[in-house]
Amino acid sequence: MNALIDVVVERLTRMLIPRPITMRATEGDFELDGTTGICASAELAGVSAWLQGALRPATGLSMGESSHGSIRLSMEPALGAEAFQLAVTPDGIRIEGGDAAGLFYGCQALLQLLPPAVFRRSKVSGVRWVVPAVKIQDAPRFAWRGTMLDVARHFMPKHDVLRFIDLMAMHRLNVLHLHLTEDQGWRIEILRYPRLTEVGAWRRESQVGAEADARGDGRPHGGYYAQDDIREIVAYAAERFITVVPEIESPGHVQAALAAYPELGVTGEQLEVWTRWGINPNVLNVEESTVDFFTNVLDEVMELFPSPYIGVGGDECPKDQWRADPRTQQRMAELGVQDEEALQSWFIRRLDDHLTAAGRRLFGWDEILEGGLASGATVASWRGMTGAITAARRGHDVVACPDDGAYLDYRQSDSADEPIPVGIVLTVADVYGFEPIPAELTKDEARHVLGGQANIWTEHMDSPRMVDFFAFPRLCALAETLWSTKERAYDDFAGRLDEHLARLDALGVEYRRPFGPLPWQKRPGIAGRPSTPDQRAAHIAQMVANIGG
Amino acid sequence: MNALIDVVVERLTRMLIPRPITMRATEGDFELDGTTGICASAELAGVSAWLQGALRPATGLSMGESSHGSIRLSMEPALGAEAFQLAVTPDGIRIEGGDAAGLFYGCQALLQLLPPAVFRRSKVSGVRWVVPAVKIQDAPRFAWRGTMLDVARHFMPKHDVLRFIDLMAMHRLNVLHLHLTEDQGWRIEILRYPRLTEVGAWRRESQVGAEADARGDGRPHGGYYAQDDIREIVAYAAERFITVVPEIESPGHVQAALAAYPELGVTGEQLEVWTRWGINPNVLNVEESTVDFFTNVLDEVMELFPSPYIGVGGDECPKDQWRADPRTQQRMAELGVQDEEALQSWFIRRLDDHLTAAGRRLFGWDEILEGGLASGATVASWRGMTGAITAARRGHDVVACPDDGAYLDYRQSDSADEPIPVGIVLTVADVYGFEPIPAELTKDEARHVLGGQANIWTEHMDSPRMVDFFAFPRLCALAETLWSTKERAYDDFAGRLDEHLARLDALGVEYRRPFGPLPWQKRPGIAGRPSTPDQRAAHIAQMVANIGG
Repeated sequence: MNALIDVVVERLTRMLIPRPITMRATEGDFELDGTTGICASAELAGVSAWLQGALRPATGLSMGESSHGSIRLSMEPALGAEAFQLAVTPDGIRIEGGDAAGLFYGCQALLQLLPPAVFRRSKVSGVRWVVPAVKIQDAPRFAWRGTMLDVARHFMPKHDVLRFIDLMAMHRLNVLHLHLTEDQGWRIEILRYPRLTEVGAWRRESQVGAEADARGDGRPHGGYYAQDDIREIVAYAAERFITVVPEIESPGHVQAALAAYPELGVTGEQLEVWTRWGINPNVLNVEESTVDFFTNVLDEVMELFPSPYIGVGGDECPKDQWRADPRTQQRMAELGVQDEEALQSWFIRRLDDHLTAAGRRLFGWDEILEGGLASGATVASWRGMTGAITAARRGHDVVACPDDGAYLDYRQSDSADEPIPVGIVLTVADVYGFEPIPAELTKDEARHVLGGQANIWTEHMDSPRMVDFFAFPRLCALAETLWSTKERAYDDFAGRLDEHLARLDALGVEYRRPFGPLPWQKRPGIAGRPSTPDQRAAHIAQMVANIGG
Repeated sequence: MNALIDVVVERLTRMLIPRPITMRATEGDFELDGTTGICASAELAGVSAWLQGALRPATGLSMGESSHGSIRLSMEPALGAEAFQLAVTPDGIRIEGGDAAGLFYGCQALLQLLPPAVFRRSKVSGVRWVVPAVKIQDAPRFAWRGTMLDVARHFMPKHDVLRFIDLMAMHRLNVLHLHLTEDQGWRIEILRYPRLTEVGAWRRESQVGAEADARGDGRPHGGYYAQDDIREIVAYAAERFITVVPEIESPGHVQAALAAYPELGVTGEQLEVWTRWGINPNVLNVEESTVDFFTNVLDEVMELFPSPYIGVGGDECPKDQWRADPRTQQRMAELGVQDEEALQSWFIRRLDDHLTAAGRRLFGWDEILEGGLASGATVASWRGMTGAITAARRGHDVVACPDDGAYLDYRQSDSADEPIPVGIVLTVADVYGFEPIPAELTKDEARHVLGGQANIWTEHMDSPRMVDFFAFPRLCALAETLWSTKERAYDDFAGRLDEHLARLDALGVEYRRPFGPLPWQKRPGIAGRPSTPDQRAAHIAQMVANIGG
């Protein structure tokens, strides 16, 4: 049969299928029609059902399961984890997965081989559902291909999260790091502490723009996920081979929790859920009762999230309140803790002990390197790649998400038209050029780099529509970056991205156009806080100065 | 087998299944499990596939199609249009439809018989999928059970429209009247006139609140549906037995079109897409070229929408510009038209002729009664029920959507906490009490009342989240009102609605809570324009004074 296959790609190493393949039509092609069925063993019923559900709406073909089906799904463990092989001949389509995830990615690749209209959700007339003759073998470079979604600064309704998960799955991303708690809102129901959502799930208003003296919008904002919603999100993601890694921020970024339970704070003052953006001075106290509160919260979180990794935050915790507070100073003396940096480490280690005892691994921002950690602790390196280097050298696993390569809230061009421009310019090409493994690492050290993730901070994305604008198409580039080998060229990607935009159009993704924002994606008159690369470098260098090497 | 059925409801006439039925568990119940299949003839494959897709996510059961399936779907034309019969015994579930739509409603009733978790989109653990033993026969009272969704004042992204369609289908509503064009935005791509969306699809800013001197928000707003998006929406709705009735407003409510093509206006002035709410003085001129423009637009609309009804608006067209404009006065003389009211009739009749010649029926607001109309023209009666009475007496079909019974933008209580409260108070009970057939009509005249619809005007709903708040649960009440016989009591409905809210929770619908808006659903400090029933009555009376009886 292979004689009829024009294109054989033994190792594609690209997430977006090259254009020449999807544009071809030869006698070796296969066309889906009313007789096409799916054949899969019982253990693959989940993927088979997913594929059926993905193909049916646009094609109108019912694609029943049948032992004679011409789409044949099977396992071939020799391919390895997350790998797949896809072969199309006039007789049918064969997808083999190294595991169920690999099989799923083979199915996603199949969707890319079909006309973009396959991504529409009702029957499309006048399209022939032809799959080009091809043989592809592929596997991802990294095991952690993630997106951090900040649903705390702006709440994203559950169904929009599910839609986002579908978009991640389409791009073969496999980790959704859900940033659930912040100064500005607490988004997950905790049964033991109902005030976290009764009080903490909404704020009075939001700061408009990034300037320190920006006005407030005078409009309440809020929302949270009930535990059943969380279960639904986690299971929905799992059915798409995405692990949801929850994050409960501590000991900083906690003002929403302090508004609900002032006794957790250093001052005990009754605060409101924060209405400003930026770094907040109000942090947790370090009493045993506060450690208990957070380990109790983490117990409910572990019950809901099967993820091996549980995020505890750990970033941007100002030490001023601890320094000024006699009781905290007394507590430090009792604990034999030298300084406030060590106190933060002590706090994080307490959570680490709790998670480790429960068989989970602590996941935190690179500031957690400032003290000792359990060996299982995993670090998200965000202040450039310094944290990644430090962590890997100390033997910790690392997820690379440097702000200058993977922060999708950063502005997409240096045009004044970009909505609320912050940070340095990070174009699609910049993101495509991101390399998760620092050149400084030895081969052994580099093995600690699990992969990378995009971080989508939503201070300035107040609706799912704006998230679309900031995330796409940069997330497409990042997804291919994390899937592909190091040898790749943006020019080659750009052509494939062009074709991919038609898929995003079919899905109604409001991505940033190559020429810039559409008129209604702009935010005229709302100040951002753009920085030059030099300014950014100086700022980051100052922030990481105390990590050491 | 019927011996095991505890509850036999020969004619339920309720859209929400009574609580005692869903709460029961008897030996006559049927439990879905891994062996459950669906049996349906080929002509019912669409409904069968839909049911399979509706049951699979939460249950995790694949529900394959099989001739031995214990969920049996079939047609029983004797039941009548849109009617169904549903019988559950320990041996299985049998759903018969008078037609495919009736079968679909039987499937929706089946979902209501299952635990609310069935509406979640991924596998739910720990739930037994038990369907109580029951026999139900049901059929709707009205053939037109609609919702008007204003996607012009605030654009609703395509995927949110599809979600709204799912929510309508769940409530057995069958007409989506899509209000696509307005002073504040033109939302449908017209290939012949690209500036309608290039220029008309977005506005510079939006008025905040309902007061005449309200400030603007300084933020652009926009969006539109490409023709492929429209096709997808129409087909998606059709697969759920919902007809999408498009509306292209004329000769008023056209400022977005005038901004794109100033030559359509009376003054020829270059206007911007309107940033205010309310009635706008800028209307179409009545040149042949303008009639041609709109009939050309309607040609593309008819190509996209198979609906027998095509909306042309016709409401709230101020005549001041026509009165003041010498050319319009000259044109009136040429046409032999007496006054400006007759001129509006002349314009609407031109569109009516065009639609009628194409085999469609003109659909417009009750102001179109002000002149003569083709007999097929259908009237949406919004200024109370006066228009309904007039239209039916003149032999026109009528859709009842009186502002005082079916305007879901009206405030839901008299509390100051209601977000931007406008109009009179319209509670769930008020909507449930809405009767589409005016008592004044004879039996023959009453046959012209096709049914009714909710109207969701979105000036003050700037996101799908706010649409949820205003639409639900009042739309549930309206749906049952349009489905049920006249003999119904709110107290009986209220108990069933309580149970129904759990379904909305599972779906993530952000409905208004019985106690009022959640903190983040409020709009403190933003003025509405509430009216008393007397003020409203006087206002409407003044507006309808020139219709006659």
